[in-house]
Amino acid sequence: MTPIWFNGRLVGEKEARIEPSDRGFTLADGIFETIRVADDRLLWIGDHLSRLRSGAQTLGIPVPLANAEIIEGLRALMKASTMSDCALRLSLTRGPSAKRGLWPATEPATPTLVATIAPFAEAPPADLVIANSTRRNEHSPLSHLKSLSYGDSILAKREAIERGATDAILRNGRGDLACCTVGNLFLQIAERWTTPQVSDGILPGLARARIIQMTGAEERTISVDELNHVTAAFITNSLQTTPVLRLEGRQLSPSSLRLDKTTLYKDRDEAPTQRW
Amino acid sequence: MTPIWFNGRLVGEKEARIEPSDRGFTLADGIFETIRVADDRLLWIGDHLSRLRSGAQTLGIPVPLANAEIIEGLRALMKASTMSDCALRLSLTRGPSAKRGLWPATEPATPTLVATIAPFAEAPPADLVIANSTRRNEHSPLSHLKSLSYGDSILAKREAIERGATDAILRNGRGDLACCTVGNLFLQIAERWTTPQVSDGILPGLARARIIQMTGAEERTISVDELNHVTAAFITNSLQTTPVLRLEGRQLSPSSLRLDKTTLYKDRDEAPTQRW
Repeated sequence: MTPIWFNGRLVGEKEARIEPSDRGFTLADGIFETIRVADDRLLWIGDHLSRLRSGAQTLGIPVPLANAEIIEGLRALMKASTMSDCALRLSLTRGPSAKRGLWPATEPATPTLVATIAPFAEAPPADLVIANSTRRNEHSPLSHLKSLSYGDSILAKREAIERGATDAILRNGRGDLACCTVGNLFLQIAERWTTPQVSDGILPGLARARIIQMTGAEERTISVDELNHVTAAFITNSLQTTPVLRLEGRQLSPSSLRLDKTTLYKDRDEAPTQRW
Repeated sequence: MTPIWFNGRLVGEKEARIEPSDRGFTLADGIFETIRVADDRLLWIGDHLSRLRSGAQTLGIPVPLANAEIIEGLRALMKASTMSDCALRLSLTRGPSAKRGLWPATEPATPTLVATIAPFAEAPPADLVIANSTRRNEHSPLSHLKSLSYGDSILAKREAIERGATDAILRNGRGDLACCTVGNLFLQIAERWTTPQVSDGILPGLARARIIQMTGAEERTISVDELNHVTAAFITNSLQTTPVLRLEGRQLSPSSLRLDKTTLYKDRDEAPTQRW
């Protein structure tokens, strides 16, 4: 039985019950973090919790537990599961609401905080197409949060698979490049690593920030025409970096970026006492 | 105890359990309809189910029951509740998924279909502001569906309330008018009723379609500057039409549109046998 950490308690999968009135379920009123667990450590947990709190503040959702309590719960979940290299998802919603209406200001929120764990397997190298089915909304604050609203990414991912690719690049409303369906995009253009800026409608990824620091990659608006000049590319998120082998049918050279994955994904566990 | 119609069965509120892995909860991977129940009748039920099926097809979510079975279930729910004038919400999600990933194509979907019922009270006349916090994404097919992704509407509604208004007009990425947070917008400009077109990033509302037919309202792109010339306005959805009394602080004349609400909201119940 897969354990779940649910509102501060470790329970069996079948005991955890999301109420049908939970605003995460009815209105996508919530956020989440996907955290890599490697060798029984919660990678970048401090930054994940900071981002969760920042997103919760933007949405006006109270975080019901202190960071140390959350970390303790996540560690208990890791311990109860039999997996050691896995992906942990921590979701926060505004919780059940008896009232109709989008902003029931008079009702105190009873947030839902739930963590699940799943085996992690590294993705194969990517074959990317540019999504025609939908675009990112760079005008929405939600494009910069890990909002529960993943509908556009689902449409783009489905399109990619139906076109024989593995993933898609989403453009924003202006037509410029934004990101892939579950990761930030790094492109080598004129021998320089570049990545779309946050204002282009992307999530400021934790791996993205580290890679910008490691490589000096330039953050700037990238037009779709520039894809013709891309010589190498990779996708990155908190779980992994994935090299891009094909871009709209064109073969790319294997990425010349030497990412020290040991540094990037293995060495960033902080004990709660070090941070909180 | 409030009854819930859950995957084909009428159950008590506390028996209905959304699994934490339900893609409606984890990724907003689903749609819904809000149906007005007046005098124990399901208004416009045929059109609601057509739109639900059309949205489900766009998202690739199978609808697990025939329309007649759904209507039978909704009638049982109405009967079990003690309310006669209420709002019925019918939600469809791709259902629980054991697998990570946005498009688990190899896994057969086990959709979640759930209906809840809540008392309905007519909203007071509206005091509207133009949302600064976010915009609609006219490039996304989700802007034309009743997707579960209501995050932008929540942000705009919260902003409206914080600014002392009752609701907000959302603009699209181009800056043109789209709709209110839970309804379509009709504006009287130069003595002509106008409403944004579907391609401006709006849901093609069922009441909207009827009102266009009743009034000959023009569907066209409306710029934000045109708000200065608006002489009357109302908001409409499947539950109600709401007159707009103030627009960005400016008093409007009471709507000169004589909507025959009896015609609009009272006479459209169809027995399932008439349609299916």
